[in-house]
Amino acid sequence: MTDPASRKAPTVRRAIDAMQPYSPPTSGRAGMLRLDFNENTRGCSPKVIEKLRELATADFLTVYPEYEAARREMAAFFGVSSDQLTFSDGTDEGIHVLLQTFVESGDEVVIPTPAFPMFKFYSQIADSTPVLVPYPESDLSFPMDALLAAITPRTRAVIIANPNNPTGTAIDLATIERILQKASRAAVLIDEAYFEFYGVTALALLPHYSNLFVSRTFSKTYGLAGLRVGCLFSQAQNMAAIRKGQSPYSVTSVGIVAALAAIEDQDYLKAYVGEVLEARAQLYAAFERLCIETFPSEANFILARFKDDALALRVYDELKGKGILVRPRGKEIAGCVRFTVGDLEQTSRLINGLEGILAS
Amino acid sequence: MTDPASRKAPTVRRAIDAMQPYSPPTSGRAGMLRLDFNENTRGCSPKVIEKLRELATADFLTVYPEYEAARREMAAFFGVSSDQLTFSDGTDEGIHVLLQTFVESGDEVVIPTPAFPMFKFYSQIADSTPVLVPYPESDLSFPMDALLAAITPRTRAVIIANPNNPTGTAIDLATIERILQKASRAAVLIDEAYFEFYGVTALALLPHYSNLFVSRTFSKTYGLAGLRVGCLFSQAQNMAAIRKGQSPYSVTSVGIVAALAAIEDQDYLKAYVGEVLEARAQLYAAFERLCIETFPSEANFILARFKDDALALRVYDELKGKGILVRPRGKEIAGCVRFTVGDLEQTSRLINGLEGILAS
Repeated sequence: MTDPASRKAPTVRRAIDAMQPYSPPTSGRAGMLRLDFNENTRGCSPKVIEKLRELATADFLTVYPEYEAARREMAAFFGVSSDQLTFSDGTDEGIHVLLQTFVESGDEVVIPTPAFPMFKFYSQIADSTPVLVPYPESDLSFPMDALLAAITPRTRAVIIANPNNPTGTAIDLATIERILQKASRAAVLIDEAYFEFYGVTALALLPHYSNLFVSRTFSKTYGLAGLRVGCLFSQAQNMAAIRKGQSPYSVTSVGIVAALAAIEDQDYLKAYVGEVLEARAQLYAAFERLCIETFPSEANFILARFKDDALALRVYDELKGKGILVRPRGKEIAGCVRFTVGDLEQTSRLINGLEGILAS
Repeated sequence: MTDPASRKAPTVRRAIDAMQPYSPPTSGRAGMLRLDFNENTRGCSPKVIEKLRELATADFLTVYPEYEAARREMAAFFGVSSDQLTFSDGTDEGIHVLLQTFVESGDEVVIPTPAFPMFKFYSQIADSTPVLVPYPESDLSFPMDALLAAITPRTRAVIIANPNNPTGTAIDLATIERILQKASRAAVLIDEAYFEFYGVTALALLPHYSNLFVSRTFSKTYGLAGLRVGCLFSQAQNMAAIRKGQSPYSVTSVGIVAALAAIEDQDYLKAYVGEVLEARAQLYAAFERLCIETFPSEANFILARFKDDALALRVYDELKGKGILVRPRGKEIAGCVRFTVGDLEQTSRLINGLEGILAS
């Protein structure tokens, strides 16, 4: 504390004070082939761009966002009623308001790990006790028995990404139902950020489980990460509780319009998803040729395990030198790097890069 | 509970359960003269529109927002260092993360009222005890003595809008300093959403008080309410604590770019502010002719007090019938209606409307 004025700085809340700063690499990505954040590597539908240019008017930007009509339209697309959906400022806000609504200080939040870091982040902000259930390092199979054992009467939330990030692995609806039944007193969030590559959704279970929550995002497959739009789903009484504590204007009007234009162009989406699935098969084949261990992915990325962290970091560094960004995951699983699967041309560039590095 | 599945709905956290739903009128505003939300009634600078059309590209929208360079640019404009500023998803998120960072469950948050409803809203979410200090109904003068008396060792935050909404009244820097000194153990937020019409900023005090926080927004004078961009300022150690618990991507890339383009066009802003101040004088003169009580406003709105709520609601209803939206405030101060001041032409339309209603 060198600044004398800082003597009186207000005391930080204990739950925040105990947290580590989370600093994802959010700069210096321009001009690189970005295979590090699982975004759509080609970009959103041209129809979204068209719509945004049309609506980039002072009259549109000046007024506060209006959600009602948009919520009806979006709900119809997802096959739910509009009181079962709320827009969120990315999935981040969805997780935040979910835990804020259902978790008291000291309650337990069960999270299979490794997982999207925001799950633990917001459980700490909620002043809960995160209960981390590890995937077995050997094969990263879903830790079902350990998860069920971790769910106790103190569990107020369970958060599972499906497919999971960074493992890429997925679980089926029967597994999700068993979790919903065991955690009958808790809010169970199934984060389906990578749904479009997997095709299995817990939304089908929504009428049957009043403790089920599902999140979707427009930041990944739809190519709108810069606009921060997500959707959170649950039965109406849960959504009403969540909206009581949600900012009335957390999502931009531009984001809403873009998301609605994006869902209308399913041809564009399907073509992209199809190409990524083809590219993913090619990347798997390349890893096999190179004798690098991988895990079965249902998403637009592959987690690969190198013989040690040194090699993993060398792969990361040398790819970066070639203008390709990927994401080291060694802090979570020793030797691991996550590779976003882009289109066929981008994947071929990645494979060439990997071959060059690993042949030497 | 008619749905059998709802039997197991998760229990809502007590702090949220105790809240009333907050439902601002966020639909049906299109096509009306919107003098209800204190937005810029003419719209943002054309240079912002130009910039957004240029940047509405798939490559820009697809990637996660990057804030570092933008924060440096924005900080330079405000005359602070970039570690004294964080972008927020509107002022809402600024209030939310501030209270989340410094207020423990059960702590007291002091709020002069009537005030921007989000102050109480987020203090409830933080599970604090809001201590509401009323403006005296007679003249709505700032309740300084009562406020100082309300600040105790249990006070962990004090939130004051300056100018205040909906009263329009303002306090000077000497008053703010006395509050900062009395509340030396609390975080003191001065919300300057209407700064551009007042010209007095607590940012000048930032180096001297480590318990001072200031918020600014691009939703009002800058005309970007639909894009949800705010800035929160404090000394570096406080901002670091706040960022630990803030979503790493809460503000859109489009919003950041628009805000930066907006601050560059100060000529546009000054011309608009100048016209609003002239229009405000005309609206004051009209209320005086009509023998309607008003309060001294330093913002782009005037709070007027009619003889009773029935007349206030009739004025609101009949203006709406003429296509003009204003905001009844009778629930906070009996007989009051808040009128946003637009440009000269819009204000003349409002005055004509008022004269027609009150002459009859």
